[in-house]
Amino acid sequence: MQTDFMQVAIEEARAGLAEGGIPIGSVLVHQGKVLGRGHNRRVQKGSAILHGEMDAIENAGRLTAKVLQECELYTTLSPCPMCSGAIVLYKIPRVIIGENRTFMGEEAWLRSHGVTVEVRQDPVCIDLMQGFISKNPSLWNEDIGC
Amino acid sequence: MQTDFMQVAIEEARAGLAEGGIPIGSVLVHQGKVLGRGHNRRVQKGSAILHGEMDAIENAGRLTAKVLQECELYTTLSPCPMCSGAIVLYKIPRVIIGENRTFMGEEAWLRSHGVTVEVRQDPVCIDLMQGFISKNPSLWNEDIGC
Repeated sequence: MQTDFMQVAIEEARAGLAEGGIPIGSVLVHQGKVLGRGHNRRVQKGSAILHGEMDAIENAGRLTAKVLQECELYTTLSPCPMCSGAIVLYKIPRVIIGENRTFMGEEAWLRSHGVTVEVRQDPVCIDLMQGFISKNPSLWNEDIGC
Repeated sequence: MQTDFMQVAIEEARAGLAEGGIPIGSVLVHQGKVLGRGHNRRVQKGSAILHGEMDAIENAGRLTAKVLQECELYTTLSPCPMCSGAIVLYKIPRVIIGENRTFMGEEAWLRSHGVTVEVRQDPVCIDLMQGFISKNPSLWNEDIGC
């Protein structure tokens, strides 16, 4: 059976939540293999740059442009400008998004750069974010620069 | 005498070069005070996300949106899509760029988001990059996803 990598991204989001962090998870996949997985670490590491997508890319380490241009990025929430910028920089061609109801990232900008963007509106992803934000509105606002 | 924070960014770039890294440095400044300084750490940390600007923002730690929206970011080289995305995310209102002859980042996109962008074409910044790229073309290409 083929792995649904969104489930891996959700596992990452839940791991972040269990650590007291913001529940957003991401997975970088190359030809069916996970190269990097990660989650938002603002709280855990006092980090302003380790959003879930950035953490997954960082954990994948240094990769060639060729490999990055063959990857897919799964992420539980629509990618913010910073994470979208990383996708554009490395020309990651396909992004699968858990949901964009909680937060609409730079999906139009990604598409304008030729990135294929798929949005699932996964109820588990929506519930994770809605539950977190209702309890931690200021932390969530900090994470998106508001 | 007023500090020229571009000189601090250049110090950072030189520190990166001395470590065997890519000579790009950045400084996040709030009301005349350095909140974070950093340099590209691709080589030093095996990092795909620690560009100079990202490292400076990371080293500044968690800040309120209000403070970020009053900051200036000095950087020796025009910011790539990822670093520009971080600037857009955190609504950093002013970016001072050492040079954009070696690499033209997302300056137009920054301006379209209301960011004031100033480019110095500083010969020291240009020499640092040109000297590095002539000796390390593949490392430079990796850093910009080519």
